Amino acid sequence: MITKQLVYEVENLTMNNEELMVNETVFHNANGYIGIRSNYEEGYPEGFDTIKGSYINGFYDIADMKQAENLHGLIEEKQTMLNIGDTQTIYLKINDQTFTMYEGEVLYSKRWLDMEKGITGRKVVWRAPNGNEVEVVIKRMTSFYQLSLFTIEYSVTALNFSGDIEFISGHNGEVRNYSNNNDPRIARESPRYLIADGAWIQEKISYLRSRTSKSGLEVCTAVKHFLSKEGSIEVKLNGHRADANINTKISENETITLLKYTVFTDSIRSSDSLSSAKKEMEKAIGLTLQSLYDHQKAYLDEYWDNCLLEIKGDDDLTAAVNYNTYQLIQSVGKDEHCNIAAKGLSGEGYEGHYFWDTEMYIQPFFNLTEANITKNLISFRYRTIDKARENARNLGHSKGVLYPWRTIMGVECSGYFPSGTAAYHINGDIAYSVVAYYLATKDMDLLETKGAEILFETARLWMDLGHYHDGKFKIHSVTGPDEYTCLVNNNYFTNVSARYNLEWAVKTYELLREAGTLKPLADKIGLEEEEIFEFQRAAEAMYLPYDDKLGINPQDDSFLEKKVWDIENTPESKFPLLLHYHPLTLYRYQVCKQADTVLSHFIFEDYQSIETIRKSFDYYEKITTHDSSLSRCIFSIVASKLGLVDKAYDYFGDSAKLDLFNTHKNTKDGIHTANMGGNYMAIVYGFAGLRIKEEGLYFSPLIPKPWKEFSFKINYEDSQIMVEINKKQSKFTLLKGGPKNIYVYDSLYTLLNTLVIDSRNGDER
Amino acid sequence: MITKQLVYEVENLTMNNEELMVNETVFHNANGYIGIRSNYEEGYPEGFDTIKGSYINGFYDIADMKQAENLHGLIEEKQTMLNIGDTQTIYLKINDQTFTMYEGEVLYSKRWLDMEKGITGRKVVWRAPNGNEVEVVIKRMTSFYQLSLFTIEYSVTALNFSGDIEFISGHNGEVRNYSNNNDPRIARESPRYLIADGAWIQEKISYLRSRTSKSGLEVCTAVKHFLSKEGSIEVKLNGHRADANINTKISENETITLLKYTVFTDSIRSSDSLSSAKKEMEKAIGLTLQSLYDHQKAYLDEYWDNCLLEIKGDDDLTAAVNYNTYQLIQSVGKDEHCNIAAKGLSGEGYEGHYFWDTEMYIQPFFNLTEANITKNLISFRYRTIDKARENARNLGHSKGVLYPWRTIMGVECSGYFPSGTAAYHINGDIAYSVVAYYLATKDMDLLETKGAEILFETARLWMDLGHYHDGKFKIHSVTGPDEYTCLVNNNYFTNVSARYNLEWAVKTYELLREAGTLKPLADKIGLEEEEIFEFQRAAEAMYLPYDDKLGINPQDDSFLEKKVWDIENTPESKFPLLLHYHPLTLYRYQVCKQADTVLSHFIFEDYQSIETIRKSFDYYEKITTHDSSLSRCIFSIVASKLGLVDKAYDYFGDSAKLDLFNTHKNTKDGIHTANMGGNYMAIVYGFAGLRIKEEGLYFSPLIPKPWKEFSFKINYEDSQIMVEINKKQSKFTLLKGGPKNIYVYDSLYTLLNTLVIDSRNGDER
Repeated sequence: MITKQLVYEVENLTMNNEELMVNETVFHNANGYIGIRSNYEEGYPEGFDTIKGSYINGFYDIADMKQAENLHGLIEEKQTMLNIGDTQTIYLKINDQTFTMYEGEVLYSKRWLDMEKGITGRKVVWRAPNGNEVEVVIKRMTSFYQLSLFTIEYSVTALNFSGDIEFISGHNGEVRNYSNNNDPRIARESPRYLIADGAWIQEKISYLRSRTSKSGLEVCTAVKHFLSKEGSIEVKLNGHRADANINTKISENETITLLKYTVFTDSIRSSDSLSSAKKEMEKAIGLTLQSLYDHQKAYLDEYWDNCLLEIKGDDDLTAAVNYNTYQLIQSVGKDEHCNIAAKGLSGEGYEGHYFWDTEMYIQPFFNLTEANITKNLISFRYRTIDKARENARNLGHSKGVLYPWRTIMGVECSGYFPSGTAAYHINGDIAYSVVAYYLATKDMDLLETKGAEILFETARLWMDLGHYHDGKFKIHSVTGPDEYTCLVNNNYFTNVSARYNLEWAVKTYELLREAGTLKPLADKIGLEEEEIFEFQRAAEAMYLPYDDKLGINPQDDSFLEKKVWDIENTPESKFPLLLHYHPLTLYRYQVCKQADTVLSHFIFEDYQSIETIRKSFDYYEKITTHDSSLSRCIFSIVASKLGLVDKAYDYFGDSAKLDLFNTHKNTKDGIHTANMGGNYMAIVYGFAGLRIKEEGLYFSPLIPKPWKEFSFKINYEDSQIMVEINKKQSKFTLLKGGPKNIYVYDSLYTLLNTLVIDSRNGDER
Repeated sequence: MITKQLVYEVENLTMNNEELMVNETVFHNANGYIGIRSNYEEGYPEGFDTIKGSYINGFYDIADMKQAENLHGLIEEKQTMLNIGDTQTIYLKINDQTFTMYEGEVLYSKRWLDMEKGITGRKVVWRAPNGNEVEVVIKRMTSFYQLSLFTIEYSVTALNFSGDIEFISGHNGEVRNYSNNNDPRIARESPRYLIADGAWIQEKISYLRSRTSKSGLEVCTAVKHFLSKEGSIEVKLNGHRADANINTKISENETITLLKYTVFTDSIRSSDSLSSAKKEMEKAIGLTLQSLYDHQKAYLDEYWDNCLLEIKGDDDLTAAVNYNTYQLIQSVGKDEHCNIAAKGLSGEGYEGHYFWDTEMYIQPFFNLTEANITKNLISFRYRTIDKARENARNLGHSKGVLYPWRTIMGVECSGYFPSGTAAYHINGDIAYSVVAYYLATKDMDLLETKGAEILFETARLWMDLGHYHDGKFKIHSVTGPDEYTCLVNNNYFTNVSARYNLEWAVKTYELLREAGTLKPLADKIGLEEEEIFEFQRAAEAMYLPYDDKLGINPQDDSFLEKKVWDIENTPESKFPLLLHYHPLTLYRYQVCKQADTVLSHFIFEDYQSIETIRKSFDYYEKITTHDSSLSRCIFSIVASKLGLVDKAYDYFGDSAKLDLFNTHKNTKDGIHTANMGGNYMAIVYGFAGLRIKEEGLYFSPLIPKPWKEFSFKINYEDSQIMVEINKKQSKFTLLKGGPKNIYVYDSLYTLLNTLVIDSRNGDER
């Protein structure tokens, strides 16, 4: 059975500002609705930088984004995720000594994330300058059971004294977003987006309501304190802030606990955020903390039961991978009003925007573990289809939809269109994800009500975008996944994704016709059979660049004609290249920020021979810098596909610990959710060789040398399958559901109960 | 002999706001140093829009130009031409009736530009609401003799009354630039760039000194009034303004004249702008107005003697063409501190920036008429070579210089680099212009001291930019002249200009070696002979795209693969396309904003056969919208070259009256100087078929059907040649200088005195 290694723990806490900011991210609490960065409740010393943020998924304001030259159609406003308020501040005074780890003496300290319980914690044993010693234990939770709820359980034990205890606990609506003028990945100005719109205290619960400056949204936060013993709690309003003063006495060896509940509500999900906050607070108060903890664990028990992954022989890696999958459930939206941001709810990098990361890096994980979440994510895209329609019109397309490269509520928010809006493959990605969900679940309902319309409308866009030339269907002036090359013709990835999109629009037309559900949709969007023939014709004629001499798929029409960037002789300090070179310089070279053609050889593998895939991998490997966190995991998967197990393992290892080890030096701005999904993929789609195709499940297992065994469970259609792979055998166990066709190393088996196949390894594969 | 048709006159003045703004441009006064828009002295009615500007060539401040996404190396500050102050405001009161053309009754009105005298004028016969009738005649001049000086001669004649006359004359330093948020060609915000830095009144002369907010420059304006009869003149300071109240009496039939002198000085040209203003004012006062007028006429007599052009049989066109060449002498800088802006000194469109317009559209005119001006313009580029070096480094080039696409003092000011900085052909254009000046003048001195360094350093840039591929030298990721297609590979124009640049770097190396002047320069810039061999090799291997099937030069590697834009079925209201379509839409089609390959077939004609040029012309003609004012003149020239005289005439006619008839709907923002040069070229290089090549002068005359004769003079080396072309003959007369080799219809003649050749026409040519 899978054992759980679900506590990530650090002792001897850092005092270093930069590391503290990284830990604000690493230890943040989130549940897909709210996210709270993990700041020390008592703050840091003066002059320390911090990103003290609390966020609501999908809650945004509109920010100016003036263009240096305002050409027609360029975007000049963007949606931006807001810092909602601060409710994590709690100052502690013992006998008038203010607790801070920067004065007195820290005798012991530890911080942890318990992924089984869904709780983060900090423990500090501290000797105050006056000699008083306390043990402080603080546990924080964003509840999966009640999404609006954030709790802090703050316990103080007097170790060698008796005396006064005071908490000053903050509730602050006067907050701004973090800004940094020097980093292109961070917003560089932070106006006051939230406007105070009412503050109240009722039964010692403080309520702060704010509205956004432009987007017309409203948010309410409410805070309530409980003390474990008698004492006074005074709450006072002060502008758009409310401070609680909490006083009591403590005796030697006694433990006093302050409980602080915050609820967050917004006008996206409820018509009246204030009364909604009252109801949510009432609901929270109605339960004991223990009961909330129990619900939290129950939720996670079920989650882990579906998606826990174990690597025997590498506990650290197991922990890292499970850390990553935990972040995915923390980050992903739980309703149709939101999605999963590039940084989840852990920070402000990329301003809370949703990208193709969702469809290509994260949904493949949820398809296998919690397909209902994928359903939400697809529903989100469907909800925003009209914005995608507007975007297409803005780009001059008379039909179809073009999904935004980055967005919160469906509006294109790319400031620099050559590596934003021009990434038309977003349409192919979303179409692919609709198909991937369908293949994993065979859920006709979502296809009929939402997915099919997405597939048809994205297919229409390709028809409007591309054109026939020399008998081939070609697509000009787009940008592929690799942003070091922009505005090219016939980007291989884009074209192959368009082909897949068109083919599946045709297949879906047939599926719906067979199911008798085609007509209402066809009528609604004016879809004629003639169009389907055109889709089919374009798909068949789709131009997929191939270079005879090298035997590879060129990234685009002119890619192979460029100079090759000398990666080897580029100083370490010049990476990532995007922070050191003008885009025009980068565009002129064969150099890839990330997997592009290589990604297509994973996602759309059946369009090329294994020889082309092998040669392409070898070619692009030499010119890829992996400056994007979305790259190494894909190289790992394709290396696995090619039987290059050592290489696959190296890529995987580099990638798995990205945030825990801050290898990209920007974890302070938030976790890299796509990379986290990519890591899961590197194991399940990579080492285990999983593919879900129309004819069934495929596995092609392979195990890295340092591992003894790795195991995971997946859901597929109505079934759950346990997969255990060791050096000798691959074992497939049907835990739930009826018999399934599975292909192992391309041989077809029927999985009735348990199937054991001898493992192949390395290049024999 | 050439007769002069040098007065452009309009009677019955418009009251329409839009037309008034156009006339502010059309009747502006400038002398290459200062430019004053032609606003009514008394202003317009309340609510009217106006661009009341006075400008100094090369005087700028630094403006923010934040990028929507700040990628590495993108420009975030630009130089912008400033509105310096207002000294043209004069209110007139007769018996307390304030003169305005919007009250009372205008009995007669007229406005004119006298290009022989260098003066603009307005005459109004006005009946005040109280019945008093006056004739107002106002003449304005920016002096070519004293560049700092602007004069207004304001005469009032009492036609039917006697009484009080009052002038309130303004001198205002509290001015801003014009802004308009809706037009990409206009700055959209106008901060206060000029900061008051001292105001004085001495001997009734008001002095206002201001400094720029960021660029560290200083400007001073001084105003002095004279009254033709006794009266009172009171000048008062009020903030950074000075108002003069001038009172006198007028008798029936008497004429009173107020004279207002303004001088403009700046810290670019003098260390102390205030004392410089005092000196300049002293100098101006030392001369009578008549004497200043005489100097003005003398200057222009000489100018017209060199560059007057006459078309017998089309007086209107003669006037339009001479209007255009007059604007060139008004606009072009008279020292090395400045150049000629896209809008001259007539308005704020393109923010006073200098573009390739100078080298490709304007210098060809000055080369033939006032070559010393070309010398200044090249010297300006030489003065800014270090900025071009910095620009190259910013773009990742380890050697060479890259001139900015748009600039005032040499710094790149392009906000949108795909159709700005990426236009590397600017280097080829500047190199070409160095050669063109040399060929026209054989001035070795400029070549040795400045031109050669430009040629070598631009050549070096091509070497760093391009690379060998399949044995050919190729240039990737650049933008050619046609901005409806950006970031392409092997733009034909760019590559051929690079080839010419490299070839002439090699030739210049030989020229300097032969002259014994090579060593100091070679030492200075570290030029080795090996590099020259590399230039030669790259020039010979330069890839010039050619399409076998069509027999044309493709605009770039992928141009011919794109969809063709359906110009015919695009509604009239959708032009210019750039104001109605997203750039990404435009990039995806075969559609040209302007001559690109066709331009190269004029400028670099010897690289292709006439057949290729003809087929290319036919091809590009169908897909060119001429949305740029730089286009039709070039199509006219190439049509002439191809013997398509009717077509050439049509293109020319459309182009010649652009500003006078506001055909591009944006003359309010300033004249189109490049188009004006282009018009001259369409006659001299087009109909007359002039080329200046190493082996001598070429003519290939042709005369449009509606014309009886056209004639012009050119300077070439030490000589001046009169050219008179009629339907029967082309007559060449050597007015000055020694015998010259000239080729007429490709046959060589020696021009000793007069040469008469039978004219050919139309397709026989």
